[in-house]
Amino acid sequence: MEVVKEGDYVLLYLDSRRGFLVEVADRVFHTHRGYLKLKELVGQPYGSRVRSSMGAEFVVLKPTLRDFILKKFRRPTQIVYPKDVGLILTYAGIGPGFRIAEAGVGSGALTAFLAYYVRPTGRVYGYEIRPEFIKIAKKNLSYTGLMEYIELKLKDVRDGFDERDLDAVVLDLPTPWEVIPKAYDALKNSGVLISFSPTINQVEKTVEAAKGYGFVSVEAVECLERRFKVKAGETRPETVMIGHTGYLVFTRKSLKST
Amino acid sequence: MEVVKEGDYVLLYLDSRRGFLVEVADRVFHTHRGYLKLKELVGQPYGSRVRSSMGAEFVVLKPTLRDFILKKFRRPTQIVYPKDVGLILTYAGIGPGFRIAEAGVGSGALTAFLAYYVRPTGRVYGYEIRPEFIKIAKKNLSYTGLMEYIELKLKDVRDGFDERDLDAVVLDLPTPWEVIPKAYDALKNSGVLISFSPTINQVEKTVEAAKGYGFVSVEAVECLERRFKVKAGETRPETVMIGHTGYLVFTRKSLKST
Amino acid sequence: MEVVKEGDYVLLYLDSRRGFLVEVADRVFHTHRGYLKLKELVGQPYGSRVRSSMGAEFVVLKPTLRDFILKKFRRPTQIVYPKDVGLILTYAGIGPGFRIAEAGVGSGALTAFLAYYVRPTGRVYGYEIRPEFIKIAKKNLSYTGLMEYIELKLKDVRDGFDERDLDAVVLDLPTPWEVIPKAYDALKNSGVLISFSPTINQVEKTVEAAKGYGFVSVEAVECLERRFKVKAGETRPETVMIGHTGYLVFTRKSLKST
Amino acid sequence: MEVVKEGDYVLLYLDSRRGFLVEVADRVFHTHRGYLKLKELVGQPYGSRVRSSMGAEFVVLKPTLRDFILKKFRRPTQIVYPKDVGLILTYAGIGPGFRIAEAGVGSGALTAFLAYYVRPTGRVYGYEIRPEFIKIAKKNLSYTGLMEYIELKLKDVRDGFDERDLDAVVLDLPTPWEVIPKAYDALKNSGVLISFSPTINQVEKTVEAAKGYGFVSVEAVECLERRFKVKAGETRPETVMIGHTGYLVFTRKSLKST
Repeated sequence: MEVVKEGDYVLLYLDSRRGFLVEVADRVFHTHRGYLKLKELVGQPYGSRVRSSMGAEFVVLKPTLRDFILKKFRRPTQIVYPKDVGLILTYAGIGPGFRIAEAGVGSGALTAFLAYYVRPTGRVYGYEIRPEFIKIAKKNLSYTGLMEYIELKLKDVRDGFDERDLDAVVLDLPTPWEVIPKAYDALKNSGVLISFSPTINQVEKTVEAAKGYGFVSVEAVECLERRFKVKAGETRPETVMIGHTGYLVFTRKSLKST
Repeated sequence: MEVVKEGDYVLLYLDSRRGFLVEVADRVFHTHRGYLKLKELVGQPYGSRVRSSMGAEFVVLKPTLRDFILKKFRRPTQIVYPKDVGLILTYAGIGPGFRIAEAGVGSGALTAFLAYYVRPTGRVYGYEIRPEFIKIAKKNLSYTGLMEYIELKLKDVRDGFDERDLDAVVLDLPTPWEVIPKAYDALKNSGVLISFSPTINQVEKTVEAAKGYGFVSVEAVECLERRFKVKAGETRPETVMIGHTGYLVFTRKSLKST
Repeated sequence: MEVVKEGDYVLLYLDSRRGFLVEVADRVFHTHRGYLKLKELVGQPYGSRVRSSMGAEFVVLKPTLRDFILKKFRRPTQIVYPKDVGLILTYAGIGPGFRIAEAGVGSGALTAFLAYYVRPTGRVYGYEIRPEFIKIAKKNLSYTGLMEYIELKLKDVRDGFDERDLDAVVLDLPTPWEVIPKAYDALKNSGVLISFSPTINQVEKTVEAAKGYGFVSVEAVECLERRFKVKAGETRPETVMIGHTGYLVFTRKSLKST
Repeated sequence: MEVVKEGDYVLLYLDSRRGFLVEVADRVFHTHRGYLKLKELVGQPYGSRVRSSMGAEFVVLKPTLRDFILKKFRRPTQIVYPKDVGLILTYAGIGPGFRIAEAGVGSGALTAFLAYYVRPTGRVYGYEIRPEFIKIAKKNLSYTGLMEYIELKLKDVRDGFDERDLDAVVLDLPTPWEVIPKAYDALKNSGVLISFSPTINQVEKTVEAAKGYGFVSVEAVECLERRFKVKAGETRPETVMIGHTGYLVFTRKSLKST
């Protein structure tokens, strides 16, 4: 039975809207529902219920990667959301052993997920041109223990990727269509190019550029997540919904006609 | 540069609506656009363009797992779709090394995806009570090279799971609420229970049962995939859409209050 | 050319997120972008652009009924939204001359729309059991000039409707299934029963009750409205969306089998 | 109690997927579930249940306008669907007394709805440049009894509308942006311009053109209709859904800045 150790990050779950991701250390954690002495969590089994000074019950959960990203990552940019990451994984077949370049690391949310899924033998090459984001991403990724699978690069992919024969290239850039030729060069034959963009115009330009450059099997999709309030006799979708994050384009490198 | 070998499965991509997943052997493959002598593909790089007897151009792609499932798996039951698998992965944090039980193997589509993502050190225990489905699933999974990560069991999970301390349990059953206690016993503390159901009534019963049995952090979500026809100046969503596959419930095992 | 008169309600449109519905009178209207002397609008053509004391440009629009409802009605309850009203109209064929009963007047939003569309020869009978809502609805409806087509009744429809041979009955009640027999009695043969409910459980019970009572041709639908930010080269759906208002059930009265 | 008369159009409702809109005359109507002698319906109350030669029960319903459009109209072009018509009505405030021009009559579905809702004092001016569609629309509209509220014109609106001071102009054209100035001239101040387009590019161009020409209060929306299979304990959305019909743009004429 796994127990909480000093230095662990734990998710203190209060209710469906509130959970706190904290590092277990010799300190007091304050909430509007009272405080918890975090040191006292050490040695408790995960899944335990603990009470705050005001008697509120918290459940000590082991955070998932998604919990880290949504609750711990600094996110000065829009991130690629877990729902969209899911599509990226299963549509592109990204899995253990994949070598992937990602252009536009931003806060590192997608980088973290990609690293998580290419473990233990794969590798993520993360390109970012804004030094301040490299810094934020590094800090964010430090919580996840995934840095050994990631190489962050302060480089402009318009000058090309350093890698060749990649299994996949993921673009999260304002002008993805500009780097189609560079992505082509970096990919192995039959490799997958993925582009994430908030506007439909970006999708259009990217698809046109990719088709014109020898990519085939284009799919452009959008993933809408609908969340439900479930209660016997009163079940309904939530009133407010994230109506849009971005569109995903998937396409595959083919050799040019000869 | 990876080339096609005899015995490989290749995806012969024709256009956005048509692609054929075939095994490369000494035979002729016929389409409405002419035939291809598959033997001649041997030694060609993946990504190559080849021409049929009628001059139609096909691109030789390496199939992803999704291609196998959508084009090669026999699917007498509704499968869990790749869009929903994506959510399962990223919401539950399923990744390399996970030990997972799946109840309701059906055609094995989800089984295959789970195995793909828990590689190389994880394992999927697939339960199914209908012998004919075990057979279909085995045949389907044989195309994927993933059987070494999977253990199929002809057993009724209402009698309990054989495993303990699992990272996740996935239910794709008509009456998932009946096996909540068994899933609880099989999961490690803080482990994730996932249930996939087509009807909202199943969601309601499952959530109520899980909450009543010590599970916390319930999320009930639905993933809608919208596909686009992308063409400069004529971009629009596709007219016909899959409006519903199923709902997903995620919840986590907590220790009972004492 | 229609000009603004004293006593008119006008919509002072500022930008896509801000518009103010005000009565033109001898007073000053203050906004964060400066003030307007409303009296000075008198005699201006509708559609005119006027400037506030701070130089902000407002356009003087003639409010639609939807503007009144969204900007002027007090709404202590959830209202039936214009998108849902649209479906009600076209699916039930509600139009000029219809005689309709509505149970659950609430703030009167749907009442107003129904009255607007049954003019000039139709009539809306609005039932409400909470006196405070009758009062609010009356006040709200007073802005619209539609009261002559409406009869508000402080009555419980569980005791039955006063009317017979109605073209349509619209239910916006917590337990619509309880009044199915009363709606049946009030409707003409082949007349349409419409029910609006936030939860899927209400839909289920209502449909079951209606089918059991001789209603046929059941349709249960939900209308999702997606809004777009449109700008050359940057077009995308809005990030936040109303994900749910309610479900609509449409069904038609048939004579019972004999 | 209203009874069926010779010459009436009735909807013979069989089940949730099948209903037949037929004219009552001295003839036999054949279905895969047996035949009905239509003459025998004369004198039966609407809502009656009748049996076919094979014993199948049909309910005799009075068709709504939507029934006529979906079951009786010839539709060689994509029509504006009732769900979208609903938004047009409630967002633009189209109702009794409105004078409206519609450009792109096509099969006349929207024309019919507009006429239905502007009765008895309003009028719809329908422009169409393809003579064959004028013919089809006339035939379609002849079933509805609404022709007295409609004036069909074989004219190109790029040459302008004949009317002035219209309450609304509705465009269902491939290049709506080209006629923005003509719509402006035809509208009264503060009047509403509505454009329906299948592609997002059309929306973008139309919005840009309208904004550049003195229109304000732009809204671009899309309406998704989701249909449900409702059955106690087995309620779920339908698997296949119409994922897209078109986008709607609403905007209002303002006087130009001076």
